[in-house]
Amino acid sequence: MTGTSEADLPDNWGRWGADDELGTLNLITDEVRARAAAEVRTGDWVSLAQPITPSAMFFSPFLPDTVESSPVQQMVSHTGGPVAADMSLIYNHHFKSTHLDALAHWSTDEQVYPGRPRAEVVTPLGITHASTAAFAAGIVTRGVLLDLAVEGPLPPARAVTPDDFEQAEKRQGVEVASGDALVVRLGWTGRGPADTPSPGISMDAVRWMHERGVAVIAPDRGDAHPPLNPDEPSPLHGVALGRMAMPLIDVPQLDDLAALCARLGRYSFLLTVAPPRIHGLTGVPVNPIALF
Amino acid sequence: MTGTSEADLPDNWGRWGADDELGTLNLITDEVRARAAAEVRTGDWVSLAQPITPSAMFFSPFLPDTVESSPVQQMVSHTGGPVAADMSLIYNHHFKSTHLDALAHWSTDEQVYPGRPRAEVVTPLGITHASTAAFAAGIVTRGVLLDLAVEGPLPPARAVTPDDFEQAEKRQGVEVASGDALVVRLGWTGRGPADTPSPGISMDAVRWMHERGVAVIAPDRGDAHPPLNPDEPSPLHGVALGRMAMPLIDVPQLDDLAALCARLGRYSFLLTVAPPRIHGLTGVPVNPIALF
Amino acid sequence: MTGTSEADLPDNWGRWGADDELGTLNLITDEVRARAAAEVRTGDWVSLAQPITPSAMFFSPFLPDTVESSPVQQMVSHTGGPVAADMSLIYNHHFKSTHLDALAHWSTDEQVYPGRPRAEVVTPLGITHASTAAFAAGIVTRGVLLDLAVEGPLPPARAVTPDDFEQAEKRQGVEVASGDALVVRLGWTGRGPADTPSPGISMDAVRWMHERGVAVIAPDRGDAHPPLNPDEPSPLHGVALGRMAMPLIDVPQLDDLAALCARLGRYSFLLTVAPPRIHGLTGVPVNPIALF
Amino acid sequence: MTGTSEADLPDNWGRWGADDELGTLNLITDEVRARAAAEVRTGDWVSLAQPITPSAMFFSPFLPDTVESSPVQQMVSHTGGPVAADMSLIYNHHFKSTHLDALAHWSTDEQVYPGRPRAEVVTPLGITHASTAAFAAGIVTRGVLLDLAVEGPLPPARAVTPDDFEQAEKRQGVEVASGDALVVRLGWTGRGPADTPSPGISMDAVRWMHERGVAVIAPDRGDAHPPLNPDEPSPLHGVALGRMAMPLIDVPQLDDLAALCARLGRYSFLLTVAPPRIHGLTGVPVNPIALF
Repeated sequence: MTGTSEADLPDNWGRWGADDELGTLNLITDEVRARAAAEVRTGDWVSLAQPITPSAMFFSPFLPDTVESSPVQQMVSHTGGPVAADMSLIYNHHFKSTHLDALAHWSTDEQVYPGRPRAEVVTPLGITHASTAAFAAGIVTRGVLLDLAVEGPLPPARAVTPDDFEQAEKRQGVEVASGDALVVRLGWTGRGPADTPSPGISMDAVRWMHERGVAVIAPDRGDAHPPLNPDEPSPLHGVALGRMAMPLIDVPQLDDLAALCARLGRYSFLLTVAPPRIHGLTGVPVNPIALF
Repeated sequence: MTGTSEADLPDNWGRWGADDELGTLNLITDEVRARAAAEVRTGDWVSLAQPITPSAMFFSPFLPDTVESSPVQQMVSHTGGPVAADMSLIYNHHFKSTHLDALAHWSTDEQVYPGRPRAEVVTPLGITHASTAAFAAGIVTRGVLLDLAVEGPLPPARAVTPDDFEQAEKRQGVEVASGDALVVRLGWTGRGPADTPSPGISMDAVRWMHERGVAVIAPDRGDAHPPLNPDEPSPLHGVALGRMAMPLIDVPQLDDLAALCARLGRYSFLLTVAPPRIHGLTGVPVNPIALF
Repeated sequence: MTGTSEADLPDNWGRWGADDELGTLNLITDEVRARAAAEVRTGDWVSLAQPITPSAMFFSPFLPDTVESSPVQQMVSHTGGPVAADMSLIYNHHFKSTHLDALAHWSTDEQVYPGRPRAEVVTPLGITHASTAAFAAGIVTRGVLLDLAVEGPLPPARAVTPDDFEQAEKRQGVEVASGDALVVRLGWTGRGPADTPSPGISMDAVRWMHERGVAVIAPDRGDAHPPLNPDEPSPLHGVALGRMAMPLIDVPQLDDLAALCARLGRYSFLLTVAPPRIHGLTGVPVNPIALF
Repeated sequence: MTGTSEADLPDNWGRWGADDELGTLNLITDEVRARAAAEVRTGDWVSLAQPITPSAMFFSPFLPDTVESSPVQQMVSHTGGPVAADMSLIYNHHFKSTHLDALAHWSTDEQVYPGRPRAEVVTPLGITHASTAAFAAGIVTRGVLLDLAVEGPLPPARAVTPDDFEQAEKRQGVEVASGDALVVRLGWTGRGPADTPSPGISMDAVRWMHERGVAVIAPDRGDAHPPLNPDEPSPLHGVALGRMAMPLIDVPQLDDLAALCARLGRYSFLLTVAPPRIHGLTGVPVNPIALF
């Protein structure tokens, strides 16, 4: 296997104009929305988020000497009246928290989608283009789960390919269509830190998403560690997010969803992705909800 | 108008057992869920959250001398490679951010619902009972908007009463039923800080919610400032949240919802309330989504 | 042993007027300053601060799962140019960091020295009276070490008494005088967290300090845990700091000082106590320097 | 004026071995220490730090809409008992706070003094070499003030030269010797933010410090903005700190010192520089004390 010249990589820069901040969310048309709505029948629902147990800020003299690191640190303030309130330090981009990556999280040749100089976009005062502002009102579309782990977690170094996707479509009786959120289960929810050897999404699989018109991607393990192909180290972050401008739900928890889909015998649903409505970030924690 | 003896206040302590953490969310039954699902037809949706523009942490030497305070402070880290990432300080309970209050946010006679000693619940290491853990998998139910501001914002000191609710039900052709999320628009979205004189929800209106079996409440202005009745300073936080154990979506943004309801001619919808899945907090920012 | 009526406790409220923020620092006169200056002969010096190894903010995906808590959390920012910079979260009042407590750290009957209502002094926007502002330009005076641990650490529950002080004075050939900083070594530097059973300073020892006119106190273990006398739970914080208005250097590291004093055969020195010049706090980390 | 080839720049890399973290602090010998001690006669002292008024963390609903940015943000915690405590966010490298820069703050050709790869030194978990750990026990040496602003602040774009230093030595009757801390007053204490046009220290002046053996430098304005010579943009940070390994007290407040020196008719003193004893940072706030 050899590297790919940049010209061959799938790319949406310019497709929706020079000022676009939505990327593949542009594929969520009225028709897609109606298709999503038609999925809601019983009101069953499930969360695609990892639970987070916050650590305390190191304020209390009664804190243990050793604590577990967490994507959230909190401090409770109680002033003697009826009210207790807290503040939280939230850290992005951990392997322990489900978050939605904005397009500005990744740059290509020092440019941010669809071609803005990074130095103008990434500033000490916040992200000025293609930040979480683009997602702040929430994303609603049809979601499709392709469960590749029905017989157990994929092994380390296993490449997820288009063939995997198409076999799952056949097995589950669904078809990924333009504007869908693609949820891919490798069986790796909660399976260790960033540097654990793992399977991952191949560049061919990313091309397949491009052809199908996937709007949002949510795999429980994304880019393999170590890379499947050293010449293409980051198909999902580098190409799908950075070039195709496809928002990434990183580190979702998919075991509950897979169990519910199996119980209902249905692998498509309406998906809401509605992080706190905070502008100007590169990513934000999110609790995606699948509705049936 | 005189004060109320405590014995007369609506109360759900004990109703769902001594260990309950869900409060009125227990009212969201399979039947309610099905009723909610039936609302989803077109896939139209709208966010009920205020947009938040973060302030920068005071890190940059290029920060202006004067900045606007915000419920979020962020700091972007960019290390020279393709990745930019950020950390955020998120502050709860501002009049500028839409958040979901947990039951432990308010205590009554030094006890937290349904009768735990506050000293055991509110600890430097986090909230141990009735925290945001109860909501972490999200809330999905039917939502009903009662728009009391069709002719403009309610004036300061105006008490919202059961009569207001019932007239709106009639006018809009909806009826609030057990398990619903009640969304109440006073026309006060974004109308100034905590200490601006304002209208608010009366104790009688809270009783009405109790009788109807409201599961979640989302008013764009909650407890009046100054209190409508000095002997009952906080019907919504003190009684609805603290005694009735009814989770509160505080400081929602309801103008977009009202506009969409008016355009569609529909005032009921499926509501998802899915904050980041963080345990142990007293409240958490949220982006509620109304689906039609 | 019985409790003490409040009227009998040593007290300096009113001694230096109703607006005073300096407390016993008023005892550092020109004469004291000259006495301090006379101690500096060789330029030998030693730090009285505990070293602090910061923990990282939980930002990095490469952070270990488990970390040690620390009074400081840091985050390094490096942007690809020559500069690396960091921000730090500093937590006060730990048993792991040497800090200088301001008078407003402790209140008596809801009042802060010398009689201001706490609600006016302790505000969400900072401390408005008797804060670290009083110490911001630094404290310079004569320091005297009384080393009570020459034969090893004092055992748990051992009360430090005036007799201990006077025997040490005799043994070491020094005498504590008005305006001095009294440094007391119990041999407890770094001997475990707040809730380890420990020796401590007795109320009689605090009275002795009052009579001698001590200006600043720096013991390597202050109030005993559990209290020496349950009716007087906190001689040092409650009485010396709160009533006598004597600033407290909490959790100093005294082993290096004791070794240098023994080597030089001198137990008095010039002491500089110069925390970062930050106003409005209840306490601030400090690195006191003893000069010989 | 033309640029300088790198080979001509003053440099101490290797002078004290491959593992050194002290840099020019190695010049503070016993003889220097004794010279410093001899300066202490009366016990007069003065702080060289800027006062810092912290901003509040954006926690309180009663925070004003607009606040001043500050190098410190604090949050007071009061829990109803006698104790009030606070936590602080401290930001480095502002033009508003007096801080001590560690050698690792600046790198040269991706190396940190005396030749360590930056990638090994600057890590997300902290600085591993030539951090504030080198200064944690404090610095004590003789200080000399050269006051160049007796007739008012130097004008923007004015280069400070060796001639300025030598005229001041003559005028004031002092001589800068090996191991001294050199304190230079340009009259710019508090004169505006980083991007205000200003005077600054020239490269020739840095060479002079190298020849004299200055151990620590404290100018109230360091590198000029814009640079005095575009080919040598940063004599003080880039060359004195990065190459000569001379610790920098950045943004000191020197007006009080100048007034005291004038009153006493003495321009040399003992200087203590004792920041909180925190390891692993690139810089730390400090309150230097000049003793006479």
